[in-house]
Amino acid sequence: MHVDGKPFRTIWPHPGDPSIVQIIDQRQLPHAFVIQDLKTWQDGATAIRDMAVRGAPLIGATAAWSMVLAAQASEDRAHLAQAAEGLLATRPTAVNLRWAIERMQAEEPAEYRALAEDICDEDVAISRRIAEHGLPLIEALADEKKGDPVHILTHCNAGWLATVDWGTATAPIYLAHERGIPVHVWVDETRPRNQGAHLTAWELGQEGIAHTVIVDNAGGHLMQHGQVDLCITGTDRTTRSGAVANKIGTYLKALAAKDNGVPFYVALPSTTIDWDLDDGFAIPIEQRDPEEVTHVQGKHDGATVQVQITPDGSPAGNYAFDVTPARLISGLITEHGVCPASEAGLRGLFPGGARG
Amino acid sequence: MHVDGKPFRTIWPHPGDPSIVQIIDQRQLPHAFVIQDLKTWQDGATAIRDMAVRGAPLIGATAAWSMVLAAQASEDRAHLAQAAEGLLATRPTAVNLRWAIERMQAEEPAEYRALAEDICDEDVAISRRIAEHGLPLIEALADEKKGDPVHILTHCNAGWLATVDWGTATAPIYLAHERGIPVHVWVDETRPRNQGAHLTAWELGQEGIAHTVIVDNAGGHLMQHGQVDLCITGTDRTTRSGAVANKIGTYLKALAAKDNGVPFYVALPSTTIDWDLDDGFAIPIEQRDPEEVTHVQGKHDGATVQVQITPDGSPAGNYAFDVTPARLISGLITEHGVCPASEAGLRGLFPGGARG
Repeated sequence: MHVDGKPFRTIWPHPGDPSIVQIIDQRQLPHAFVIQDLKTWQDGATAIRDMAVRGAPLIGATAAWSMVLAAQASEDRAHLAQAAEGLLATRPTAVNLRWAIERMQAEEPAEYRALAEDICDEDVAISRRIAEHGLPLIEALADEKKGDPVHILTHCNAGWLATVDWGTATAPIYLAHERGIPVHVWVDETRPRNQGAHLTAWELGQEGIAHTVIVDNAGGHLMQHGQVDLCITGTDRTTRSGAVANKIGTYLKALAAKDNGVPFYVALPSTTIDWDLDDGFAIPIEQRDPEEVTHVQGKHDGATVQVQITPDGSPAGNYAFDVTPARLISGLITEHGVCPASEAGLRGLFPGGARG
Repeated sequence: MHVDGKPFRTIWPHPGDPSIVQIIDQRQLPHAFVIQDLKTWQDGATAIRDMAVRGAPLIGATAAWSMVLAAQASEDRAHLAQAAEGLLATRPTAVNLRWAIERMQAEEPAEYRALAEDICDEDVAISRRIAEHGLPLIEALADEKKGDPVHILTHCNAGWLATVDWGTATAPIYLAHERGIPVHVWVDETRPRNQGAHLTAWELGQEGIAHTVIVDNAGGHLMQHGQVDLCITGTDRTTRSGAVANKIGTYLKALAAKDNGVPFYVALPSTTIDWDLDDGFAIPIEQRDPEEVTHVQGKHDGATVQVQITPDGSPAGNYAFDVTPARLISGLITEHGVCPASEAGLRGLFPGGARG
């Protein structure tokens, strides 16, 4: 996708120095576009843990590149195992992290760079196929609406910034826009970290897609009043029975969609499927620093600063994800097609299970 | 309730100059406790419109005192009618505004002051009766929990700051705490204006009640995991069939409560009941300045400032309330007792209808 009209991915080898990997420091968006250099695997781990990069597919890609950086320093197996372990400890919910690291570790260190490049290219191809499989859902609604825009609600950022390019939830939206279908996106701001307000609004704006930022509280009201035609979110981990762990608050939107007959789809690369898990409530839910709740980041006098919104001394809780049961999900949009949110549905598209 | 250990109401005549009415400028909480003087009815209208005061009962009380200020300037009927109209235009959703103004207008201007004092005293008495009627709900849960705290989730601020004293949703909580029942409150921050993080957390902290601030997205997750025993919210307008218009996002919490078998109660003075309305969707829903969504207020370097969270150029929508259908509400806690959220329930407690 584009930044100020120029095409970008979210992670790439430094064009002048292949020993360096570059990322967009997403914590500084939307008010500053800053490219950050990763020189060691620890830089990669820090970028994941501190959320300079986030989103399940991009976490996987960054972990893969971090293993390249580790092998660059030393191909010693103990060193590589330590890097793998350090990277795995950064974020407990995203399954792509483990997937990418295990895939790297199955190769010889000399092959790491080529594999990291493959993982990134594959991710782009997967997003593109998600776009193509999701597009007919939007086209059908566009036909019904006879020229009026299709209103799509999304939560958090499952955009190109969460992947290597194109995104998951946003991929069908970008393709619909490219095909001239009028779309308008309701962007949940997505507290506590405001990935919707900071990232989704920014990337949609950069692509010229009509959108409106709303508070996370507003989606139910909009659905009650027929102002949402379709919900699409991403997922950080999908169980084989079709439950999804996604950004906290996704479950509330799925409940509202069900209550109002609004289709609720989840877009995902099959790398987010955890075939070992049946029950979504077994997914470990990361608890993060309460300061993400008590403080909000934004622009003040031209600089990006944090403001404290709670009284001194009031504790805060910060649960990063929730689980949306399969019964609330209209369908899963994957790189192999759209299926019901069920084990039968997923097995139908991925008969081989893992990495079908 | 108390501020730094000293008892306060939310509105009172200036102790040294009865021509002035004083309020707490709630926009500056929790980081500064500022008392504001109202000298004219226009000061009162501005305080309501700009939300220096808010909460249905306190809006009613402020409107009553603003009529006192209007009559102080001139008892001319046309002038008083103009003040009434100006006050009515400030906030469209709260029904108490109209109720208080009509009650004032039915009296002679010479009686306004006494009536405003009565309205405030009555409001405190009503909150106290809501506390007494709601208390058994908490006591029953405390018995079940055998000494573990009762976890109560609330949305927005239906605390003493929303009324003249005690609050509506918080009234039973304050009384339970006074009686030594262990309670813990999950405080929804309540975007966009963060009345939970700014006001509810502050007033609970001042009373020494255990609480945790959470983002509005978190309540569903907590309910899925059995961490919420009871929800209590307020309401700005209640239809005769028991639907409530309350702060945006209330509907989402009610859906989650229903889905997880968590009791969901709404506490209300009967002044919020609109006996003319059956269908909640006929309630006018105020749309406010998008800047409340794009900007967040908090403390930075010791001062209260606004930060912009959205990219330049991204539009925002700001819907202030949503409607929770009666089917999602376990019961209504009123000054006359607890009843089912239905016309039969309300008529049972208020056989005379309006102001039973």
